[in-house]
Amino acid sequence: MKNIYDLPTPALVIDAAALEKNLATMAAALPGSRLRPHVKAHKCTELAKRQRAHGHTTFACATMREVLGMAAAGLGDDLLLANEVLDASPLSGIDARVTLAVDSDETVVAAANAGIREVLIDVNVGLPRCGCPPKKAGRLADFARSRGLTVRGVMGYEGHAVTIKNRFVRRLLCAWSMRTLRRAHADVGGDTVSAGGTGTYAHNDTATEIQAGSYALMDNAYAKYGFPFERAAFVLATVISTNGHYAVANAGLKCFGMDHGKPTIDNGRVWIVSDEHTTFTSRAKTYVGDLVRLWPSHIDPTVAYHERAFVIDGENVVDEWPIDLRGW
Amino acid sequence: MKNIYDLPTPALVIDAAALEKNLATMAAALPGSRLRPHVKAHKCTELAKRQRAHGHTTFACATMREVLGMAAAGLGDDLLLANEVLDASPLSGIDARVTLAVDSDETVVAAANAGIREVLIDVNVGLPRCGCPPKKAGRLADFARSRGLTVRGVMGYEGHAVTIKNRFVRRLLCAWSMRTLRRAHADVGGDTVSAGGTGTYAHNDTATEIQAGSYALMDNAYAKYGFPFERAAFVLATVISTNGHYAVANAGLKCFGMDHGKPTIDNGRVWIVSDEHTTFTSRAKTYVGDLVRLWPSHIDPTVAYHERAFVIDGENVVDEWPIDLRGW
Repeated sequence: MKNIYDLPTPALVIDAAALEKNLATMAAALPGSRLRPHVKAHKCTELAKRQRAHGHTTFACATMREVLGMAAAGLGDDLLLANEVLDASPLSGIDARVTLAVDSDETVVAAANAGIREVLIDVNVGLPRCGCPPKKAGRLADFARSRGLTVRGVMGYEGHAVTIKNRFVRRLLCAWSMRTLRRAHADVGGDTVSAGGTGTYAHNDTATEIQAGSYALMDNAYAKYGFPFERAAFVLATVISTNGHYAVANAGLKCFGMDHGKPTIDNGRVWIVSDEHTTFTSRAKTYVGDLVRLWPSHIDPTVAYHERAFVIDGENVVDEWPIDLRGW
Repeated sequence: MKNIYDLPTPALVIDAAALEKNLATMAAALPGSRLRPHVKAHKCTELAKRQRAHGHTTFACATMREVLGMAAAGLGDDLLLANEVLDASPLSGIDARVTLAVDSDETVVAAANAGIREVLIDVNVGLPRCGCPPKKAGRLADFARSRGLTVRGVMGYEGHAVTIKNRFVRRLLCAWSMRTLRRAHADVGGDTVSAGGTGTYAHNDTATEIQAGSYALMDNAYAKYGFPFERAAFVLATVISTNGHYAVANAGLKCFGMDHGKPTIDNGRVWIVSDEHTTFTSRAKTYVGDLVRLWPSHIDPTVAYHERAFVIDGENVVDEWPIDLRGW
């Protein structure tokens, strides 16, 4: 069995025990189709298979490549492309149940033209991103039905609430957003109210299904909120240079999504991240050749840089998973 | 011929005319081996071939994958791995001339063990990253020679000077760094003094070769300095949602290196970038289906997200280049 010391670095590493604990905790809170795991956070069909093993058979995707990859991996029971597309033709004839989010006449027409059968009306519930104005949701649903589409319900992502640190304000913003979504749902019809994320999974009681993704691998940003999930992914790097004042590891900007800040290191501080280097100081004496674990601050754009993840049990490498849903 | 409107989005796009102008301008300033183009900025052997067509046959790499890819593409006349590695065995037997940067006994041993024949002594000239202390450079060169390696000279990157906006301070820091490098060179010997980057290419008169990479494609960060190079790469995205107040394009955090800030848009302002979305306002009326050009703030980690680049001449797509040097 390969050891962590045998890995080429930099390497994206997933701790199997931490991942398993996160998956089990969420599956207990939101069993089966109460959770629609969002694959954008890990872009990995092998990881999605573990989510299915925990009882989830419905998945959310952010790109057509994710939908196609999930279908090809036999995970196409119920795939929601929770995003707008204007040319859905790559999905024509796909061997999977695919539902598209739509928020305009143009996206409805795109779905119909590609032979897609089902849609969710994407409603803006406060986040400055996609979603039709709530008052137009009913009209858009009628238009979709007039084009032969089945409207399964509504979707509305309270992403502006997810990252509010004050728990009271977070709940309040979530509640306001969901009130808007319920009203739109009354105009739209259908069985599905799809919303939420890791940040609001515990108190969104409006959604029939929660689109959470980050809970599986977590990151520094989400770890601050006190959710019952732990960080399960890091970048393993080798110390390639030291000078007594600081050390340099061989993982940099091409390893980490940086929008939520620099990666962190246990018992030390990260000072500078450049293309292929992280300069850090450590309370422990550090030598050339040492392995270090760098914890990403935002998991989604971190995973998207890596072509594979190594799965570890303690210090043993037990598996290697392709990050096969990257790109567009 | 394919048109820009036929491209799947998001797409990394290179403007052939702007690229050609940048390559010609640099080749006139630093002809032939006076420039050692750094491929980390574009990770693309097709682009490297255009640099060779402008007379440059020596290249700098930041990863072993880049070295291997350049050699496989027939661009292995003189490849410098301008970075430290502790296991160079993937380069053993490579059909190319490969020189490794070394800054410690360990990296010298790694080079010798892999059958590498030539090294540069990497000297710390002020940037808190790799490089041996200047006073130890001569001793390290002796050690390398004792292990059978040919020491071609020194390398020292004044990266801390490159991004100083005040041109006087930038020149001063560069000059101090190069004084340090000259002293180390006197102790080390060899013909080569490898240093510099796009930020200091014009006034580093110590280096025998300048390692510039960003000049080819440029980005928002470098465009502020008034160099005679223009931005030649952008991400083409489609407007997938609008609401009268703002518009949303289908390119996000997985398209852009974010460490130098958000991408920008002409005649408008980028407000929010999330995984697959950019929310922006524009002075022009914007409709669903419009194409927009988003300009990256840092080109290196932007390119590393994309598996290919489309090359355009005006609005015609004239070529498609794999970004084939990604990963590790």
